[in-house]
Amino acid sequence: MEEKLQYKINLTDKVPFHNNALFCVGTGRMNLALRKEYHDQLKKVQEDIHFSYIRGHGLLCDDMAVYHTYEEDGEMKVEYNFTYIDLVFDDYLSMGLKPFVELGFMPEALASGTQTVFYWKGNVTPPSDYKKWAELIKGLVHHLMDRYGREEVVTWPFEVWNEPNLPGFWKGADMEEYFHLYEVTANALKECDSRIRAGGPAICGVDDKRWLTCFLKHCSENKVPLDFVTRHAYAADAPDRDGHYEYQALREPKAFMDELRESRRIIDSFPEYEGMEMHITEFNTSYTPRNPIHDTNLNAAYTARLLSEMGDVCASYSYWTFGDVFEETGVAYTPFSGCFGLLANGMIPKPTYWAFSFFKNLKETAIARSEHFVMTMDEKRGICGIGWNPVEGNEDKDITLEFSLNLSNGDYMLVTKVVDENTCNPLRAWTKMGTPAYLNKEQLDLLLECARPKVDIKQIRVMDDATVFEIPLSSNGLCYFEIQQIYPKADRGFRPERIRGAI
Amino acid sequence: MEEKLQYKINLTDKVPFHNNALFCVGTGRMNLALRKEYHDQLKKVQEDIHFSYIRGHGLLCDDMAVYHTYEEDGEMKVEYNFTYIDLVFDDYLSMGLKPFVELGFMPEALASGTQTVFYWKGNVTPPSDYKKWAELIKGLVHHLMDRYGREEVVTWPFEVWNEPNLPGFWKGADMEEYFHLYEVTANALKECDSRIRAGGPAICGVDDKRWLTCFLKHCSENKVPLDFVTRHAYAADAPDRDGHYEYQALREPKAFMDELRESRRIIDSFPEYEGMEMHITEFNTSYTPRNPIHDTNLNAAYTARLLSEMGDVCASYSYWTFGDVFEETGVAYTPFSGCFGLLANGMIPKPTYWAFSFFKNLKETAIARSEHFVMTMDEKRGICGIGWNPVEGNEDKDITLEFSLNLSNGDYMLVTKVVDENTCNPLRAWTKMGTPAYLNKEQLDLLLECARPKVDIKQIRVMDDATVFEIPLSSNGLCYFEIQQIYPKADRGFRPERIRGAI
Amino acid sequence: MEEKLQYKINLTDKVPFHNNALFCVGTGRMNLALRKEYHDQLKKVQEDIHFSYIRGHGLLCDDMAVYHTYEEDGEMKVEYNFTYIDLVFDDYLSMGLKPFVELGFMPEALASGTQTVFYWKGNVTPPSDYKKWAELIKGLVHHLMDRYGREEVVTWPFEVWNEPNLPGFWKGADMEEYFHLYEVTANALKECDSRIRAGGPAICGVDDKRWLTCFLKHCSENKVPLDFVTRHAYAADAPDRDGHYEYQALREPKAFMDELRESRRIIDSFPEYEGMEMHITEFNTSYTPRNPIHDTNLNAAYTARLLSEMGDVCASYSYWTFGDVFEETGVAYTPFSGCFGLLANGMIPKPTYWAFSFFKNLKETAIARSEHFVMTMDEKRGICGIGWNPVEGNEDKDITLEFSLNLSNGDYMLVTKVVDENTCNPLRAWTKMGTPAYLNKEQLDLLLECARPKVDIKQIRVMDDATVFEIPLSSNGLCYFEIQQIYPKADRGFRPERIRGAI
Amino acid sequence: MEEKLQYKINLTDKVPFHNNALFCVGTGRMNLALRKEYHDQLKKVQEDIHFSYIRGHGLLCDDMAVYHTYEEDGEMKVEYNFTYIDLVFDDYLSMGLKPFVELGFMPEALASGTQTVFYWKGNVTPPSDYKKWAELIKGLVHHLMDRYGREEVVTWPFEVWNEPNLPGFWKGADMEEYFHLYEVTANALKECDSRIRAGGPAICGVDDKRWLTCFLKHCSENKVPLDFVTRHAYAADAPDRDGHYEYQALREPKAFMDELRESRRIIDSFPEYEGMEMHITEFNTSYTPRNPIHDTNLNAAYTARLLSEMGDVCASYSYWTFGDVFEETGVAYTPFSGCFGLLANGMIPKPTYWAFSFFKNLKETAIARSEHFVMTMDEKRGICGIGWNPVEGNEDKDITLEFSLNLSNGDYMLVTKVVDENTCNPLRAWTKMGTPAYLNKEQLDLLLECARPKVDIKQIRVMDDATVFEIPLSSNGLCYFEIQQIYPKADRGFRPERIRGAI
Repeated sequence: MEEKLQYKINLTDKVPFHNNALFCVGTGRMNLALRKEYHDQLKKVQEDIHFSYIRGHGLLCDDMAVYHTYEEDGEMKVEYNFTYIDLVFDDYLSMGLKPFVELGFMPEALASGTQTVFYWKGNVTPPSDYKKWAELIKGLVHHLMDRYGREEVVTWPFEVWNEPNLPGFWKGADMEEYFHLYEVTANALKECDSRIRAGGPAICGVDDKRWLTCFLKHCSENKVPLDFVTRHAYAADAPDRDGHYEYQALREPKAFMDELRESRRIIDSFPEYEGMEMHITEFNTSYTPRNPIHDTNLNAAYTARLLSEMGDVCASYSYWTFGDVFEETGVAYTPFSGCFGLLANGMIPKPTYWAFSFFKNLKETAIARSEHFVMTMDEKRGICGIGWNPVEGNEDKDITLEFSLNLSNGDYMLVTKVVDENTCNPLRAWTKMGTPAYLNKEQLDLLLECARPKVDIKQIRVMDDATVFEIPLSSNGLCYFEIQQIYPKADRGFRPERIRGAI
Repeated sequence: MEEKLQYKINLTDKVPFHNNALFCVGTGRMNLALRKEYHDQLKKVQEDIHFSYIRGHGLLCDDMAVYHTYEEDGEMKVEYNFTYIDLVFDDYLSMGLKPFVELGFMPEALASGTQTVFYWKGNVTPPSDYKKWAELIKGLVHHLMDRYGREEVVTWPFEVWNEPNLPGFWKGADMEEYFHLYEVTANALKECDSRIRAGGPAICGVDDKRWLTCFLKHCSENKVPLDFVTRHAYAADAPDRDGHYEYQALREPKAFMDELRESRRIIDSFPEYEGMEMHITEFNTSYTPRNPIHDTNLNAAYTARLLSEMGDVCASYSYWTFGDVFEETGVAYTPFSGCFGLLANGMIPKPTYWAFSFFKNLKETAIARSEHFVMTMDEKRGICGIGWNPVEGNEDKDITLEFSLNLSNGDYMLVTKVVDENTCNPLRAWTKMGTPAYLNKEQLDLLLECARPKVDIKQIRVMDDATVFEIPLSSNGLCYFEIQQIYPKADRGFRPERIRGAI
Repeated sequence: MEEKLQYKINLTDKVPFHNNALFCVGTGRMNLALRKEYHDQLKKVQEDIHFSYIRGHGLLCDDMAVYHTYEEDGEMKVEYNFTYIDLVFDDYLSMGLKPFVELGFMPEALASGTQTVFYWKGNVTPPSDYKKWAELIKGLVHHLMDRYGREEVVTWPFEVWNEPNLPGFWKGADMEEYFHLYEVTANALKECDSRIRAGGPAICGVDDKRWLTCFLKHCSENKVPLDFVTRHAYAADAPDRDGHYEYQALREPKAFMDELRESRRIIDSFPEYEGMEMHITEFNTSYTPRNPIHDTNLNAAYTARLLSEMGDVCASYSYWTFGDVFEETGVAYTPFSGCFGLLANGMIPKPTYWAFSFFKNLKETAIARSEHFVMTMDEKRGICGIGWNPVEGNEDKDITLEFSLNLSNGDYMLVTKVVDENTCNPLRAWTKMGTPAYLNKEQLDLLLECARPKVDIKQIRVMDDATVFEIPLSSNGLCYFEIQQIYPKADRGFRPERIRGAI
Repeated sequence: MEEKLQYKINLTDKVPFHNNALFCVGTGRMNLALRKEYHDQLKKVQEDIHFSYIRGHGLLCDDMAVYHTYEEDGEMKVEYNFTYIDLVFDDYLSMGLKPFVELGFMPEALASGTQTVFYWKGNVTPPSDYKKWAELIKGLVHHLMDRYGREEVVTWPFEVWNEPNLPGFWKGADMEEYFHLYEVTANALKECDSRIRAGGPAICGVDDKRWLTCFLKHCSENKVPLDFVTRHAYAADAPDRDGHYEYQALREPKAFMDELRESRRIIDSFPEYEGMEMHITEFNTSYTPRNPIHDTNLNAAYTARLLSEMGDVCASYSYWTFGDVFEETGVAYTPFSGCFGLLANGMIPKPTYWAFSFFKNLKETAIARSEHFVMTMDEKRGICGIGWNPVEGNEDKDITLEFSLNLSNGDYMLVTKVVDENTCNPLRAWTKMGTPAYLNKEQLDLLLECARPKVDIKQIRVMDDATVFEIPLSSNGLCYFEIQQIYPKADRGFRPERIRGAI
């Protein structure tokens, strides 16, 4: 099936579009940030995309070695060790990233129970002693201010815990207990510096309306400090498990967005919180790190659409996660394991990687937008746009976007960068290779060569202050396009018409 | 126009094929080897292609600052300065390259005249004092042996001068004078170590039969040391100059090869020189660094054919040159100036770059070959081949190579890497940009993205011990292909049929 | 106190000296090899010192994610995941290191019990099923041969387990059980390729004579494959614990060596094992990673002496460990935590680092040796030596080595590189800084500047075919010295006597 | 001889001190900036010292290939080629350097004569056509604004020509001709953008008072644009030539400064130029690149004093030059050739390198200063100072600076970094090696080890709000010192008194 969609665009139009795709990105647990491959992947991501913040679990878990007790003179004493946190945050800052700090999970020696989450066993029980927890938070923040400077640390948001509305992440999903944790923590933060920004409740989309309403009510009634609201958003239905993998269907983008709009509405219903920043501190298509969808072109096309819309409702939206160094369900057996990352292990960009790299290039002002594209412009660098065409299921549905633009007369160059199932699909290339579990250098190099957008340049001559151009999008195609005025001027004696292949 | 060529290939066949494409590469004058961009280009070439030797002009020219005279106690004395030679050779060796040493041109203070060649003014007159010349050669070689070790230096060939059969390169193209220079030089080299290998006459294809015959006769009759014969080969006719550029037609590859075969025949006609190594110390399509053909896909396809045939006749053949840091006719005004390099300035691979990178991958044994392809095999890494389709002029002529192969049953992966006018043509991309003389970062990045082969992977299941596959070659297309047996084995639960786009 | 020791040395003498200091080095557990700081430290060590092999614990522990079970069709099945082992071994090989493979500890799913060792909880119980253990070993080796090549893998020694003679490392220190483990493992290795070399019993110096004797007897009587013998050696007495630290006295070097000589004697007492390689797969002064001695100049001077003597008795001796990324007793609170490494965290070379870098430079033939120095010579690069002066306790005892050498007449350069408590003592510098737990960039840079040998060059003119020179060694001083003949030749007009400070 | 100098310093004092040592640095001619070693040296200089601007000769010389003429339709036409200028300026900006643009020398095709300067033959004659010169300047500036942005280019000072008061640099040292050149050039610059800053007359200290007075008078009377005044300053007397070298005596620092003060006075005597910036666009001890003084510790100590005083009189002072890639008198025969650079070839820091690296660390406010030291302070990073002790001739004269400071009670760390003839003197080390002309890797590494400051840390406990400390300075010693308050806090159980060598 094929379809042509026609758009007539006026360059002086302005349409709402809040592009904040690069504000924050998610990561595997903090301890993994000590890894070399993690560093290498993140460095590449920062070179090509450059996020501003990064958020992940496990800052206070025992593999970060922060909280310790010992007996001395018959008394139990506490000591802190910030060595690993320093290593991780030093590395982030060296790559131009600030932490979007998630406070959790519980150090064993401070835990009230033994319940853990994930393969890596993060303790998810409340503190056995809230006073010691508050001391820990203050000790941490003071250490950070000593090392990185007070003015720097007050630019880092602090979020309390992760998805307490799930019993797996917070013992019993006990709402009151979480509110207490939040309150103690937020107050501890403010004691360090009143400018430090505290936020929660970091919930996912389960019983979320009730949780959000109660949380805001609790904060409001008890004068609990709250600087921003956080939640998560995923677009997939219940999974079907098969071996190491899980398969799911996607919800409609509109359903995904409606859930966020509802949260927005709840926040705005509190006069004192109206307009307060809502940060989506995790989002993705599927919420399981075993769904191969994350490695597909469908994921890229679907995510592109989300990126074009989420800024309408949210202050930011953090893709979960930048890379596949991630162990929540154990260590992946293959390079394409369905994990969340923009990069597969081996530093292979997945299609969704390019969605982010394309959004990076958008200009400040949008001049047109639909559910299939966004187009922006600035004076200096011309017109940029992104088109997408997500198609689930087995059928193909190709579309063509046709744009009529009132460009002024002159010569232009039209650059297109295409990522689709045929041109930039490392998952398929790997399948064709026979899905080798352990890539050798030749295989890896080959996959890297199969994971690059197809780039093309055309020249356009505009005659009557108007032009028409087409962006074809095959199924799950994603296309970045750019139009720039050029002023052709040949070197003395350079005659393309005399050179085979030059025109 | 389109054509299909069918080949039936037996895997156990062996056909002659002496692949020595990576033995040596040419370079701009030695002083340019001090440049940063030169180093960066050569480093990239070595990483991707890895030549064994490098040869260029100007080792003894005054910009290398080697030969000096001064007055002391009323007497003229000589002093040598090998500082820059060390810098250059250190750098070569650090990149896995050995010098194929060309001895020339003449230091001013030792010259008998003032005639120079090129923008950079290399003095091309005989020495004013042959004894001092011999001292210089010996001083140089002893210095090299001190620094790099005697065992290393005896692996470097030494060639005497460059194209003395042209009056522009050797005053008066004086044959007798050259023979004298050769004799003095060869003897000086042997004095340093009898294992040092001396060669000449480094002629180009002008009056070449007479020169070669006389040179060999001279050496033979006078017992002049000679370890190898050198000459140059270019495929272009007389140029038509226009501004900074020159345009030429190409000769048929057969004519190009016949000239070399004739040289081979002359050498073999001397019983004492029969079978002696003949090194083509320069070759390319056009001999002028102002012909845009060097930047085209035609050049790549034409050169690929030459690379497949030259080993039949020559010990080696050195492409002139690896990069565009080159100043023979001055400094280029644009990144695509028609210069010789595999890389354009800015580190942009030209199509011919990929021809060499593809020949690097060929296996040791050829199983089939025609004027459009060569196919090789080894036990471990399977079957590799290269196809090419050079088309001059304005007409297109696409061809398809169809191969029938007696592969044994099993699963295989067919990898293709295509470089043609539509997929990997940075010259055209630059033309579409309006031929900007000074590239900014965005333009350069874009050109790099337009200068990569299109890579594709297919799976083949062989059932009856035979398979047929096609390699389509559009005009001036160049295609590397590789067939490897695979043993598909899916991870537990990985079901490509459940993953959109995976198959 | 001061003392002068005089040595008269004849350049034509030869004395026994088997320098194998760079054969192997120890490391923290395999999972730590995924860390970035680990990689950076090891890279520096390889650049400056360059060991050939590396050995550490935990290859099969659960944080390497190798061994897994799952239920399918009502049956318990096993699957392997070699992803992390590949990452680690790829990295080693990229740095010129081969693994000295230690097989252990036990994956939880294959363990017969729950006893663990270390902060990182390595399971130290025998396999619950020896057949499955043997399958695992064979699966591992076949995977390694697939990835790295059979010819490569047969150059890697395989050692079975670690210190089974300690109950903490092997449940009950059960000797018979270990012999069984050894036998099953060695046979499994030989099944993969008979050239794979198996060794044990990897014991430390507790009840070691009995263990070694019984082990050899067991192998001998039961025809168990054995290609080399391994043991460990430490020079410290029982520790005194204080907070995060442990303090110990050192034994005399002679006592240390006698223990090894006794092992050698036991091996040689078995006719079939006479002369068999004995590898010391771990050695150091103290065996606890909390003893600050590892960070001192005493450690360097003491270790230098051991390095000069251990080759008399052992095939190799592997310093435990190259760096301080190490978590056996938890995560260090400060950069100088008394851990084993040659490098402190932050990439700060400890004094012992230089001992190894000096032994790297020794020539092949020793011409003199005492308990305070070793001196070597070769034709090409002259004379090299190392002197050391270990002094425990609070008293100082400086010595001077005076060498009389029958050097032939000429000019020489005497280079000395001194590492002692006053010139290259980062631990003291850090103490003077107030022992900051978390170093900022300025502090780290300063410590690096305080962690470099003091280098000096003197000129010696030998007149009567003899010279005398002195190497002063302050307490715990370590000095590398080198004598090379030089042929001074001034540039025209260079007059040191006219240049302030040049002579 | 020894001397003690005592200073009593009050921390609340402020003394004048305008530290602008890092504003600008000199370089060999622009074409050399294309070299790899040049780039590597400059990169190191920027990492360790970080200058803001860079200035050198030859921007318009023919080896930069800027200005060309050709005949077309019987007419002589002009074309520009900015390829090499772009390469050079791109590289500068990538290292955080802006050009301090020197306009000169004359392209051959625009020259009125053939007189040249230097080994590299810069044409020093006036333009044959001032209109074409003005076009060239405007063409250049417009190209720079296109590439780097108008806002960037207006921050680059433009200086007209170099040392026109010497006949060697400007034909006939013709003052009126220079004034004309200046006027044409300055007007051309202002035509491009009135904010572009023009300056001259770039004279050296020959007939300088008359030149400066006349130049300012000319500008004033003719309303010629002038934004800043430039001159050069060297401290050496007439040279004595010997082979490749020249030897000179130094003038007193006071005489050096008096010359600059006189220039300042002349400028200020014009009401319209009172207070106008005077930039010393070149300074050094000796003005010949063949004087070994540049490689000595004397040079470092003497320069340190100049750096402490020149800011009193000048807006900036540009050390001539950062490195020894420099060919004014030809190519150096040895690594220590007496050339101007802070770095010797091979990347060896000369003593003066450290003088600049030390001035980089000074704080903003000076609290004390003499002819032997400067001391500064800021709240955050404590007290920093530099001491120096230049001694010419053969006698030694050591001094000790004794400082009494009213530091408040507490613990402090005193860091000293010493560069003197005994501890950091690579020239002497090279002399001891026998002055090898061509360094091999071992020799180079050794020299690098001999070219590092000696760093030491002491702890000071201040009891009665006062302390006294000494900085000993041997002949030609240079010492950086830093005092920082520390808050010692030992890790639990860390007992330096139990650790040999820790205190």
